[in-house]
Amino acid sequence: MISEFALIERYFTRPASSADLGVGDDCALLSVSPGHQLAVSTDMLVSGRHFFADVDPHRLGHKALAVNLSDLAAMGAKPRWFTLSLALPAIEEPWLAAFADGMFDLAREFGVELVGGDTTSGPLNICVQIMGEVPTGQALLRSGARPEDDVWISGTLGDAALALDGLQGKISLAGEGFAFVRDRLERPLPKVNLGLALRGLAHAAIDVSDGLLADLGHILTRSCVGAALDWESVPLSNAMRSVEDLSVVRRCALSGGDDYELCFTAPACVRPHIDALRDTLGVALARIGVITAACDLQVRDVRGEPIEIERHGYDHFA
Amino acid sequence: MISEFALIERYFTRPASSADLGVGDDCALLSVSPGHQLAVSTDMLVSGRHFFADVDPHRLGHKALAVNLSDLAAMGAKPRWFTLSLALPAIEEPWLAAFADGMFDLAREFGVELVGGDTTSGPLNICVQIMGEVPTGQALLRSGARPEDDVWISGTLGDAALALDGLQGKISLAGEGFAFVRDRLERPLPKVNLGLALRGLAHAAIDVSDGLLADLGHILTRSCVGAALDWESVPLSNAMRSVEDLSVVRRCALSGGDDYELCFTAPACVRPHIDALRDTLGVALARIGVITAACDLQVRDVRGEPIEIERHGYDHFA
Repeated sequence: MISEFALIERYFTRPASSADLGVGDDCALLSVSPGHQLAVSTDMLVSGRHFFADVDPHRLGHKALAVNLSDLAAMGAKPRWFTLSLALPAIEEPWLAAFADGMFDLAREFGVELVGGDTTSGPLNICVQIMGEVPTGQALLRSGARPEDDVWISGTLGDAALALDGLQGKISLAGEGFAFVRDRLERPLPKVNLGLALRGLAHAAIDVSDGLLADLGHILTRSCVGAALDWESVPLSNAMRSVEDLSVVRRCALSGGDDYELCFTAPACVRPHIDALRDTLGVALARIGVITAACDLQVRDVRGEPIEIERHGYDHFA
Repeated sequence: MISEFALIERYFTRPASSADLGVGDDCALLSVSPGHQLAVSTDMLVSGRHFFADVDPHRLGHKALAVNLSDLAAMGAKPRWFTLSLALPAIEEPWLAAFADGMFDLAREFGVELVGGDTTSGPLNICVQIMGEVPTGQALLRSGARPEDDVWISGTLGDAALALDGLQGKISLAGEGFAFVRDRLERPLPKVNLGLALRGLAHAAIDVSDGLLADLGHILTRSCVGAALDWESVPLSNAMRSVEDLSVVRRCALSGGDDYELCFTAPACVRPHIDALRDTLGVALARIGVITAACDLQVRDVRGEPIEIERHGYDHFA
């Protein structure tokens, strides 16, 4: 049996290039760029809650890092370093190799470096803490939304929740559409470059991990404002459009988690700049409503009638 | 049932005073002091592995933070901030309140602030990441030990392992002695102030979490040196001295984990400075051996004979 130390050495130790000191001492040592703030976030993924125990480990490694990168994206922070704590029920080397590959492939793409961690036996649990940096005072906060701001969303909404419905056998999805939404669930692409581009443009931002209404709700609460959204403007994938049951579509798109798109607000005067990002970044961007002074959140259908929403988002203990 | 968000609000949100932005956004925002490096470490504690499921939650909250503070101590870094990820099988508010109290009591003592985290349902798992700062270039590394250095250890060794033996019914311990070693296991006191005082004095340092020989072994490997230790100099508590079976005493003191004392090396010329720390910091310090050019680790008894060591330290997957 490979030892804990050999495991770390074999799968999780890469030469540190952007850290002063990486894996292998009591702490990593990092130098934050002058004039920058450190942005820090952490996400814990538990087997059976955040992923199926038999999920492809390459995808799991990707996702564990992706959901953390998404938090940096939502702050407009540049990814720099991360730590990984891992509880494993047993050591299965092919699983570990694939998990590490999935994680490091994504890390390479965004120039973020593993600098430390912890490995232990226990029920499968993956905890990543990510660190990035942002020029002091330029971070995108949840608290900056103002009345009259446009509400924007990247990509399409609800695909991950739709995939979960499919995997749980709640709905039946055709081959190609299923593969698409399953990719969205298992290999989310954090909108890091969009977050960086939104510095100085957006007033507020959040990543959609718990569902649009829940996450936009955090912006509204922190900013002491409300919002009116147009259901017809909410961007949906072709796979989602092929679902006939409108209640499923609305539940997935408005309250489904795990999409990791960015929801942000920005004044109308910067619309041309945001529109231009579609081409320069190759990202879909939709204007789905407006921030209001009244502190409530409404979604209106094509006739202007409010849509009833049952559940706003995911609560791990509900 | 209290919601995930109410739980975080009630138990884990305190006003941020040293963070630019604390709990409640996608990331925390932190400003590292100019001329300092950020020191980062993380430890994951799993129920049934690192602690008994029925351990006093106040002590568990203390310990989860203490073991992380100990990593900063071993680098000579000043504690600043931490994040907490928590998987809970169920929400038991008295348990959570006690856990949070234990954690925040220790946090207050060392001026370290909770700035973010994650809460989810799942088998009990506590993952803390700690961040501190150290003047650039002054961190205590594992790699700095040199031949002729003294080998030092703070406090006494093996008490936590002895307590574990007692709790598991492997040995019988008397009331007062058991209470003492159980405190050592469940409420370790991180040697933060000692670590800070050792900057500029020690050549290398590590905290003893996996057992003296294993942890000193990391210093030796990283520094490409060896060590010769005198068993008679290894500091033992009265509780440990009361144990009659010498093999138990040696196993606990040399290979037992969870003591969170500092093991460090320093040149003989700074002995007076280190001796003086006993009084100024109120910490026990023992000189237990010497670093050698030959790359092995020996422990000699009072007659100078090498002591056979079965197991060097704890491996989570052994």
